Amino acid sequence: MSSINPESQSMARDHKVNGHGSNKLAKYVGFIEVVLRFILFLTTIAPVLLLATSKQTVFFRLPFPPYGMSASAKFTSIPALVYEISALSVTCLYSIITGLLSIYAYMKGANRSAKLMFNIFVMDLLLVGIVSAAAGAGGEAAYIGLRGNKAAKWPKICTIYDTFCLHVGFSCLTSSFAATALIFLIILYVFTLSPENHNY
Amino acid sequence: MSSINPESQSMARDHKVNGHGSNKLAKYVGFIEVVLRFILFLTTIAPVLLLATSKQTVFFRLPFPPYGMSASAKFTSIPALVYEISALSVTCLYSIITGLLSIYAYMKGANRSAKLMFNIFVMDLLLVGIVSAAAGAGGEAAYIGLRGNKAAKWPKICTIYDTFCLHVGFSCLTSSFAATALIFLIILYVFTLSPENHNY
Repeated sequence: MSSINPESQSMARDHKVNGHGSNKLAKYVGFIEVVLRFILFLTTIAPVLLLATSKQTVFFRLPFPPYGMSASAKFTSIPALVYEISALSVTCLYSIITGLLSIYAYMKGANRSAKLMFNIFVMDLLLVGIVSAAAGAGGEAAYIGLRGNKAAKWPKICTIYDTFCLHVGFSCLTSSFAATALIFLIILYVFTLSPENHNY
Repeated sequence: MSSINPESQSMARDHKVNGHGSNKLAKYVGFIEVVLRFILFLTTIAPVLLLATSKQTVFFRLPFPPYGMSASAKFTSIPALVYEISALSVTCLYSIITGLLSIYAYMKGANRSAKLMFNIFVMDLLLVGIVSAAAGAGGEAAYIGLRGNKAAKWPKICTIYDTFCLHVGFSCLTSSFAATALIFLIILYVFTLSPENHNY
């Protein structure tokens, strides 16, 4: 990904031809991208940590020997949460890599190659779907835990494992923020592709 | 959304300047968009119909009066499936509207205004998230129904309501196809914005 290749040259030419003060815009866009990637990092590391620390052990007293027993809830016992933590770990790693790339581009003031930008865009787009599905699946598991389901005879578990449910619930909330950050990153990319078409 | 406005004029000028046989490309892109919107329609109407017809009533024999009872499973008893059918109905309606717009543009061979295209792109993008979340939530409900969860003491229900579970499972599968169609539509839009940057 050298900065001097036909694609970026053609982009630079286009920018010059359009003559809209694109350099200033590119600077702003670069800064907004860095901020959004940092938000993406925060909103993906948060649910990973929340889920990883969600284990809760509850003690019950019994009126007969051994007079007590313990039961624990952890995310590995619900497959949807395993999927959620995997998806968000991958997205977190991805946000670090692309964040460093965008910081580098912002500091140097250089355009990244159009092909790299396009590949990052496609990855962003796929991750919107993956992260949203993870938030949906985890949210549904948390909802069943919170409310139960009378028709299917699924009992509530959040009355017993309250901290566990709070962790799972907030992890779903923050992962939906991560999906939102990805959506804004994609809109930003489209914005940079055709700044002359949008007068918002 | 008249076809003669500054934006589309500037787009047309750009196409002329680039001189890449853009008219032919625009024709292909228009056709692919019509096909993708039709696939989106099919993959959103299918889960709506599958969920709407998922009601299953099961009869049990009892050894005492009244010697039998019935229980039924329907999608309204699981909130995730209500969310799924709502999200996919909206997407289905949206696919009809935008599908007709794209057919009109393809038949007339005219460019739609850049602002309209951008708004359709943003809606597509939001719907990727919404449809994926619906597929995730519905899929998790179906998974708990199929496998149950020993740690949370959620029993399987698919051993009793087999047809219901098949309907729910296939509705989640088809709605993930709908999300894929939306992703391809967004990539197509980005492709039309900068055909000179991508040599794939």
